[in-house]
Amino acid sequence: MKKVKIALLGLGNVGRGVWTILKENQEEIAKRSGFKVEIAKILVRDKSKQRGVEVPENIVTTDFNDILNDDSIKIVVEVMGGIEPAREYMLQCMGKKKQIVTANKMLIATGGDELFHKADREGVRFNYEASVAGGIPIIQAINESLTGNKIEQLYGIVNGTTNFILGKMQLEGSKFDDILKEAQAKGYAEADPTSDIEGFDAQYKLAILASLAFGTKVAVEKVYREGITNITEVDMEYAKTFGMVIKLLAIVKDTDGKLELRVHPTMIPETHPLANVYDSFNAVFIKGNAVGDLMFYGRGAGDLPTGSAVVSDIVSIIRNNIEFDNTNLVVKNNLWNKEIMDVGQVKSKYYIRLTVDDRPGVLGDITAILGNQDVSLRSVIQKGEIKNEEKVDLVLVTHLTREDNINKSLEEIKKLDAVKSIDNLIRIEDFEN
Amino acid sequence: MKKVKIALLGLGNVGRGVWTILKENQEEIAKRSGFKVEIAKILVRDKSKQRGVEVPENIVTTDFNDILNDDSIKIVVEVMGGIEPAREYMLQCMGKKKQIVTANKMLIATGGDELFHKADREGVRFNYEASVAGGIPIIQAINESLTGNKIEQLYGIVNGTTNFILGKMQLEGSKFDDILKEAQAKGYAEADPTSDIEGFDAQYKLAILASLAFGTKVAVEKVYREGITNITEVDMEYAKTFGMVIKLLAIVKDTDGKLELRVHPTMIPETHPLANVYDSFNAVFIKGNAVGDLMFYGRGAGDLPTGSAVVSDIVSIIRNNIEFDNTNLVVKNNLWNKEIMDVGQVKSKYYIRLTVDDRPGVLGDITAILGNQDVSLRSVIQKGEIKNEEKVDLVLVTHLTREDNINKSLEEIKKLDAVKSIDNLIRIEDFEN
Repeated sequence: MKKVKIALLGLGNVGRGVWTILKENQEEIAKRSGFKVEIAKILVRDKSKQRGVEVPENIVTTDFNDILNDDSIKIVVEVMGGIEPAREYMLQCMGKKKQIVTANKMLIATGGDELFHKADREGVRFNYEASVAGGIPIIQAINESLTGNKIEQLYGIVNGTTNFILGKMQLEGSKFDDILKEAQAKGYAEADPTSDIEGFDAQYKLAILASLAFGTKVAVEKVYREGITNITEVDMEYAKTFGMVIKLLAIVKDTDGKLELRVHPTMIPETHPLANVYDSFNAVFIKGNAVGDLMFYGRGAGDLPTGSAVVSDIVSIIRNNIEFDNTNLVVKNNLWNKEIMDVGQVKSKYYIRLTVDDRPGVLGDITAILGNQDVSLRSVIQKGEIKNEEKVDLVLVTHLTREDNINKSLEEIKKLDAVKSIDNLIRIEDFEN
Repeated sequence: MKKVKIALLGLGNVGRGVWTILKENQEEIAKRSGFKVEIAKILVRDKSKQRGVEVPENIVTTDFNDILNDDSIKIVVEVMGGIEPAREYMLQCMGKKKQIVTANKMLIATGGDELFHKADREGVRFNYEASVAGGIPIIQAINESLTGNKIEQLYGIVNGTTNFILGKMQLEGSKFDDILKEAQAKGYAEADPTSDIEGFDAQYKLAILASLAFGTKVAVEKVYREGITNITEVDMEYAKTFGMVIKLLAIVKDTDGKLELRVHPTMIPETHPLANVYDSFNAVFIKGNAVGDLMFYGRGAGDLPTGSAVVSDIVSIIRNNIEFDNTNLVVKNNLWNKEIMDVGQVKSKYYIRLTVDDRPGVLGDITAILGNQDVSLRSVIQKGEIKNEEKVDLVLVTHLTREDNINKSLEEIKKLDAVKSIDNLIRIEDFEN
């Protein structure tokens, strides 16, 4: 059987997954690819570190040049993470006509262009399935399986930590802080959970997905971002009364030729396929003008699921023959140059929860302000029970309206004497617009 | 821009979808593929037939040789359906080194091998994404994205008609017959619905999916098959009390190196991602030894969703360059030669509904018979209300047990004087084994 030599840059979590899969499933991979895949070199920083997998000493190196200058190594797999030296190493390997596979979300989201162009110039493949949504083959789906479509909308649950927390809050009625601690204990959340719970991780991933789905460059900072720390048991309960659940969604829509890009907690109908995505699972829901609704669900992280994506990228390169000079090796994300919509222009439906004095006229004052901003209400819930003294919960659900108009309304509403606090604002997506 | 000429064999439902997509989305497709795709010829049986799309008269032909002998046509798209002459036409086109795309489920399921081998010998691509689950890129996912995995289990909702009917029964409490009529009126069900409601359609699709997922030949008739005509409102209600819903699942599992293959109504937990697949949607749930749980959801039929799959196959051929001689052009399904398990050996949990006399000792007699067959019960529900005279509903839910043992038990139970009828037997899948 023919053999192809590859090298790993890094042997952390994902690297271990790749090593394990190539070892455990080597027979399957050989049968399916037609080649025996041999890991010929692994770059590490510290040879003495324990890594939980048994790797022959003679293939581990601390010198990148051992890999760069070994012409028998045809594919280099970057699983070290971070911007540098990962970026520099990949560029150099491309210069040596090595094919590249990477799992590097941050690098693709922020510096992907340079790498795409270099790969294009050198005529090498550059695959990055593992950079978004772990084991879910969403990059392949967008780049290869939806090529007959204009993608119109994409909704992703792309952060497992926040999905785990929100799911537990919903199903068990527990509090955010308690579940965050549980998630940290289980290893689902980092010691510093900011990147996850404030939506930064989802923001990076949405930038990548949006740029691929819409063939346009998307700067990470153009994505509106809101985390889940404001979501309380009370909001979960109200959502339930509406037949809804709350998920942190990464959303991109083509609206009148402009892209709206946002990451925020969202109420969605409990019968929608995204609603049954629990635990630390990820899912990406896509509307295409030919295919209609499509959803992909799976593990968004973990050594083996992410390793699964990396290995499929390796096999894809092998199958498409590493000697073959193809002009379409790199799927380009600069086919169009779409304008990004200002978040204030985005239309949504809203859930607004306030604490107000329990006296006549309050609701009238509030609806008058909303009416002035063209915001119309679909429903109002005023709970009879008094929270403390004479204050009550007031929950408003609006029809479709512009974010700017909501913000202006809330500025005014805040000034009303009878309004004690605006407790939450959650966007509602019923997938009807 | 470079141009590639293709031909369609057939201009029915799917053909119209392909035509519409290639016209409506031509700019996207050109940008993404690097080629302008031109439909140069369309084979039809009757030129005068109205088809709901405007096709230039000069490209329509009734003579297959116009396509076969036109060397400028590089890709032939078979969307005529049926076994012959589709099979013969594709074989001849392969002989002329034309690349082939087909949407032909029945042909792939029953005569796929001959076509795979011919494509392999001729060195042409043979793509058939549209043959299963319409717009869902499940073939691509299995063949390309899960190459690092041993797939262990696959569960599909692959028939839209039955899913529409079961969903309505569950959500609206309506009767099977009434919904079937509604489905027929909406065009979701055929005038003769046998192929759908008796599970034949799902049986074909499972044969294809199983052969790809497990790299082994699967004869359609080896798939155990049961339709949904026995499912009543009463079963739906009981399922609900257990926190479950009923779906027609196509299941293949690798159990001790043997494949179990079956299509039947199945109770699954209402929080499982497959449970929220409603309307005429399809979904395929896969467990891989690296990737873990994965699900793909989308439209399983319809001109545009199916057309979307066909067009992605066309673009895939173009991207992989039609002049390129690759040894792995055709993904083979004969990598292993797995044994198919006899359905009697399959293990499942079971829901059994009986009508029995309301007198002491009946339950004892039944559990004694079950005990003799090593069938143990997880729960028993005996409804207090009397159905008519002295008869009551008795519902049994078993632990994991062998199908043979259930069948033998039921033979015995049927003979009991107090047992008036065995009303239903539904398998339960809680995804825990």
